Amino acid sequence: MIYLDNSATTLPDPTVLTSFQQISSNYFANPSSIHPLGGQVEQLFHMAKKQAAELLKVRQEEVVFTSGGTEGNNMAIKGIALQHQQRGKHIITTEIEHPSVLEACRSLETLGFHVTYLPVNQSGVVAVEDVQQAIREDTILITIMHVNNEMGSIQPTKEIADIAAKHPKLFFHIDNVQGVGKVPLSLSHPGINLCTMSGHKIHGLKGTGILYVDNRTTLFPLFHGGEQERNLRSGTENVAGSVSMVKALRIIKEKETTTLDQMYEIRNVLFEALQEIPEVIVNTPNNGAPHIVNFSVPGTKPEVMIHMLAEKEIYISTKSACSSKQADASKILKACGFTKDRTTSALRVSLSYETTLEEIYQFIETLKQAIRQFKKVME
Amino acid sequence: MIYLDNSATTLPDPTVLTSFQQISSNYFANPSSIHPLGGQVEQLFHMAKKQAAELLKVRQEEVVFTSGGTEGNNMAIKGIALQHQQRGKHIITTEIEHPSVLEACRSLETLGFHVTYLPVNQSGVVAVEDVQQAIREDTILITIMHVNNEMGSIQPTKEIADIAAKHPKLFFHIDNVQGVGKVPLSLSHPGINLCTMSGHKIHGLKGTGILYVDNRTTLFPLFHGGEQERNLRSGTENVAGSVSMVKALRIIKEKETTTLDQMYEIRNVLFEALQEIPEVIVNTPNNGAPHIVNFSVPGTKPEVMIHMLAEKEIYISTKSACSSKQADASKILKACGFTKDRTTSALRVSLSYETTLEEIYQFIETLKQAIRQFKKVME
Ligand SMILES: Cc1ncc(COP(=O)(O)O)c(C=O)c1O
Ligand SMILES: Cc1ncc(COP(=O)(O)O)c(C=O)c1O
Repeated sequence: MIYLDNSATTLPDPTVLTSFQQISSNYFANPSSIHPLGGQVEQLFHMAKKQAAELLKVRQEEVVFTSGGTEGNNMAIKGIALQHQQRGKHIITTEIEHPSVLEACRSLETLGFHVTYLPVNQSGVVAVEDVQQAIREDTILITIMHVNNEMGSIQPTKEIADIAAKHPKLFFHIDNVQGVGKVPLSLSHPGINLCTMSGHKIHGLKGTGILYVDNRTTLFPLFHGGEQERNLRSGTENVAGSVSMVKALRIIKEKETTTLDQMYEIRNVLFEALQEIPEVIVNTPNNGAPHIVNFSVPGTKPEVMIHMLAEKEIYISTKSACSSKQADASKILKACGFTKDRTTSALRVSLSYETTLEEIYQFIETLKQAIRQFKKVME
Repeated sequence: MIYLDNSATTLPDPTVLTSFQQISSNYFANPSSIHPLGGQVEQLFHMAKKQAAELLKVRQEEVVFTSGGTEGNNMAIKGIALQHQQRGKHIITTEIEHPSVLEACRSLETLGFHVTYLPVNQSGVVAVEDVQQAIREDTILITIMHVNNEMGSIQPTKEIADIAAKHPKLFFHIDNVQGVGKVPLSLSHPGINLCTMSGHKIHGLKGTGILYVDNRTTLFPLFHGGEQERNLRSGTENVAGSVSMVKALRIIKEKETTTLDQMYEIRNVLFEALQEIPEVIVNTPNNGAPHIVNFSVPGTKPEVMIHMLAEKEIYISTKSACSSKQADASKILKACGFTKDRTTSALRVSLSYETTLEEIYQFIETLKQAIRQFKKVME
């Protein structure tokens, strides 16, 4: 099996799963219980938070454990909007955000908020000047992703943070679900207030995630209740899940240090091999992330290509997983200004640190065969 | 070790943990991916939902998997409020709800909603007539728990559902986190629209839960995004967590059928033994749930009692876990109208189906010793 759909989700690291299991059975008490079993679990939870803070180079209390990327994005966006609406009701985002950002913004429009959706260029990148110019007196939030899940394009988050830092009345949130462990991002850079991460995209478990909330930022919580997590996210803490999330984060951060160059090399081989196939147009910009390559095979149907590859046990995807069942054009590629034959025939290959050159060669050969086969059938 | 804090959280069933682990490693794909690996996982997810629906005697699409009880309660309450606010802005609840209900209601007050908090009697039970009388033209939601987490008192949810059924413009939500598998509740009873369940209270995993949403009920989602879960809760599905939740549900439902009488017997032995200790006042009503017994030892400090018991490896709690660190009086016991010496000295014992008579005898003996010791020190 050659699994090249790592942007949809990843295989959990066995050690991550083991620590989840051990904590679930040996440290099952409620950390809020005042007996010693509860105290032990509470300590474990604090340790996990401390480790996460060290890995992310932020303060311990700025780490909030969530159930995943969709929760993190909604918590950040709705949380800022509902908490700070007296100040203003304007939000800035881009046209190529993940649905968990776009739909959260749209839902706020139904509650009376105003949202500016910025365009992107053909590389899938927003212009810093556009962000600058979109800021109004009543802007309370800029929410822009780091790495695009379909294109692999990298947004100028640092430059946007610099702008945000000059407007202390607004908050800047980054959806970094795709970037963690692959494209470095310093959360301590001034101007960044919130950042979303998801466990299952970094070989952690589904149902786990982290939202970074800097300690000057207040939110209207999605979950009110027992005041856990700085009162930002109530509910009995999923301590086993949190520890497993931190473990996944540690492992991917190590890989980022030791193996990122190698991932880029493999990605470049893939990139160039795709460019050499006459029927293929590569959509991802050359300076994109190391793990995502999007390309089109105009005239083919992506679902058919995927099934032909799957027959050889090679697994890739069309658009982002959660919109993949809608058979229409990719909205993100459309936003990049690509023609219809490109937006309706796009495929995405996404690598992990385990992906080998050998697998890439095999994928390329199988893709070529599939294209030939497709053409034959259509003739 | 004698663990009698099962209302705070429970030890996960080993088979529940095993199925979580197996699915996490063998069926890790994203159910939204259109390749066959995704398809397999999607099928598994549908099977889990079907099983949950059969166990709960509801329709498959009415089962929404969540991250736990706090999410379920917030999703139901804020979801109804934000979605149906044109119709009215009045909510009815009681004074003894879990913080995840009470604080969700309070948060809505800051957004312009009006909430009626109904009182309870000395048995910790709300009067059906009070609910009836509180209903106004602009009432959109009644949210009342089934089993109280501190008192073990059972609310007349059936009678309230009958009233709700006569007011088709309002929704009725039940927080059944403490009742699942211990106090039967028929979700198909007319008038019930929403019901919250939590995995970790029934020997499932933390980070898992179910919100029942009947198929005529629409909600403003907490999580917008990829439109998973009938568009009520977006986000990559935690399939392993959902399957584990259903397994926990199945096991506890079986126990409810086979072992509930035995649990009541053990609880009654505990109840009577406590009543015979002169220093003890039992707070839980005789007709309460089979797994929760709350009592006070006026003049003692609950934290001290808990630590004395913990030295003998017996684990019980004060108030509900998530407010247990506030050393003040129990708000729930206060709402029942008890005097201060009772509300500040309360302890809670909560059983599981694994609790034995032997453990209860040992607990009672150790409690008696602890009371004697405490009195000696204070003399
Ligand atoms: C960029 C981006 N943001 C957010 C999400 C949502 O994360 P999750 O699947 O953990 O809800 C995803 C993945 O689905 C994503 O790729
Ligand atoms: C009655 C009740 N409702 C809701 C909750 C919250 O559930 P969870 O801990 O799964 O968030 C609890 C437990 O803490 C509870 O006892």
